[in-house]
Amino acid sequence: MKALKPAIILVRPQLPENIGMVARVMQNFDLKDLILVRPREKWPNKKTINASKSASNIINKAKVYDSISEAISTFNLIVATTNRKRFLEKKCINQFNTLSKLIQLNKKSAILFGPENSGLSNEDLRLADFLFTIDTSNHNHSLNLSHAVAITSYKLNEFFVKNKKNTIDQKKLLKDQSSKKEIKNFLNFLIFNLDKNNFFYPAAKRESMIDNIYSIFLKSSLTKKEVKTLWGIIKNIGN
Amino acid sequence: MKALKPAIILVRPQLPENIGMVARVMQNFDLKDLILVRPREKWPNKKTINASKSASNIINKAKVYDSISEAISTFNLIVATTNRKRFLEKKCINQFNTLSKLIQLNKKSAILFGPENSGLSNEDLRLADFLFTIDTSNHNHSLNLSHAVAITSYKLNEFFVKNKKNTIDQKKLLKDQSSKKEIKNFLNFLIFNLDKNNFFYPAAKRESMIDNIYSIFLKSSLTKKEVKTLWGIIKNIGN
Repeated sequence: MKALKPAIILVRPQLPENIGMVARVMQNFDLKDLILVRPREKWPNKKTINASKSASNIINKAKVYDSISEAISTFNLIVATTNRKRFLEKKCINQFNTLSKLIQLNKKSAILFGPENSGLSNEDLRLADFLFTIDTSNHNHSLNLSHAVAITSYKLNEFFVKNKKNTIDQKKLLKDQSSKKEIKNFLNFLIFNLDKNNFFYPAAKRESMIDNIYSIFLKSSLTKKEVKTLWGIIKNIGN
Repeated sequence: MKALKPAIILVRPQLPENIGMVARVMQNFDLKDLILVRPREKWPNKKTINASKSASNIINKAKVYDSISEAISTFNLIVATTNRKRFLEKKCINQFNTLSKLIQLNKKSAILFGPENSGLSNEDLRLADFLFTIDTSNHNHSLNLSHAVAITSYKLNEFFVKNKKNTIDQKKLLKDQSSKKEIKNFLNFLIFNLDKNNFFYPAAKRESMIDNIYSIFLKSSLTKKEVKTLWGIIKNIGN
């Protein structure tokens, strides 16, 4: 059996907009299961739905529970996020790579995020297998709830799709590339025109000036079309 | 001379809360410079300040400009974010590692984020050196603005913390680099000359022809000296 993508569990979330923003960013990164434990506002509600944009399927499928223990009863791995040091006998992780591997090794996993004002309580953490902290600057450890989920979702998705798709279309890139001959012809034409107008002065500097011109036009991997444009420019201005 | 952390430039941001959330997450990941181009609401405002939480220093220091070209005039590298395929001759990146290395190789860089409803226009992208896309699920490419900044800030911080000991000597490279203003001035001069000679024909193609010219001269990270050489070439040939 394949490991499922983790569920996101929001524990006592306070702001309906944040729940909607969480659903939206879950959809951005292909997470599907949202679980709420005692949301402060009535569920569902307009503010959440508006903030979720096109992620209504995640909102509609979201499950709501009265307690963490009910919410997590069918899961194999529970990771609880925290931005504070805890004096608990729990393993702490701060590497998304480790988190992703744990998720990969478990059939059904969930990540807990606490309420906006206070985070998860020690009691909330009791049933967690691991604690996870997103590394932040020492100037400000307090992440917005939906930002914490956004970064987590991005990083998990990055791990799960790594190496799967190569989005740069190299064939097209290579096909369009100008040949050295095309660039050389253009540069000959340019230098011919410059010579006509005594650009290379004093004569002793001619070679190094030409080197510079070569360097300008060689370092940018011009396409065939761009070389044509450059011909057009020089012809036009020389008129 | 050391490469600076990138500035975040929000172009025509619409929701004050998003600007505040952006400032907050910049502080979470040690970015300091926020720049706004024509924000829709009066600046500064209560909603932004509330949403920024403890990041008031970033809000207070934020600079506001009327145009992108003013906002970026002192930068060496401009990366524009987009979630759509563009038919532009610009290099596209979707790897944060590549983005981070580019930033490391430039003295002063900035990342552009477009308005919430529409993203950056093709005209907005003109002065960008690269386009950057955050990989998302095919189910939903539309990231919330502050989520896009959150993920970007997290990933850049991850890179810069990892690569603190940077052994490449970038001093010379960074010192010689041309600024966007220098390139912009050169391109204005070039286009002025081309216009005089009716180069842009038919008129309907003018804009896309100009896009191509920008792209040719932006993608090669020209030095100050090279920009001067190009001025010299155009002046000389136009004689």
